Amino acid sequence: MAAGSEKGAAENAVYVGTKPVMNYVLAAITQFNEGGNEVVLKARGKAISRAVDVAEILRNRFIQGLVPKNIAIGTEEVQTESGDKINVSTIEIVLGKS
Amino acid sequence: MAAGSEKGAAENAVYVGTKPVMNYVLAAITQFNEGGNEVVLKARGKAISRAVDVAEILRNRFIQGLVPKNIAIGTEEVQTESGDKINVSTIEIVLGKS
Repeated sequence: MAAGSEKGAAENAVYVGTKPVMNYVLAAITQFNEGGNEVVLKARGKAISRAVDVAEILRNRFIQGLVPKNIAIGTEEVQTESGDKINVSTIEIVLGKS
Repeated sequence: MAAGSEKGAAENAVYVGTKPVMNYVLAAITQFNEGGNEVVLKARGKAISRAVDVAEILRNRFIQGLVPKNIAIGTEEVQTESGDKINVSTIEIVLGKS
């Protein structure tokens, strides 16, 4: 499991949560250094803005020629601890070298 | 100035800030009812996740056939009150009827 990821990371995904932004930046850089051509940043709810920060920091400061190949938004139903179901927004940002 | 917008709204843009989500949902619905085919949701920093919420609520609850035509992310330099310059992430979500 990569340093900055929140869950058991699927393939080339970095799950952006509530940790400091640079954790996720580092996790993504690690994925690229392991030979991947694309990294998918995934986030839900309030972490969505942090995922955009991660993408922008990677592009502007660390990896030249990195571009957002696709950005998708969606909605997921999540069960709260009290058993209620609430909707949360999601984002997926596919970053690749141009 | 539309009810939910933060700044003097340019053309068909809705600037998503710190007000309740439904303010911006209403502002966007108003734009569509005035005859527009597209609405652009714009947000910076922590308001980015709220902009995604606005888009998803519009799509899932209010306007049938509404799809994100384009989603762009970027970085803007902002001057703080103390004169420092900081970078903030931005998002633009173009919503249109399919």
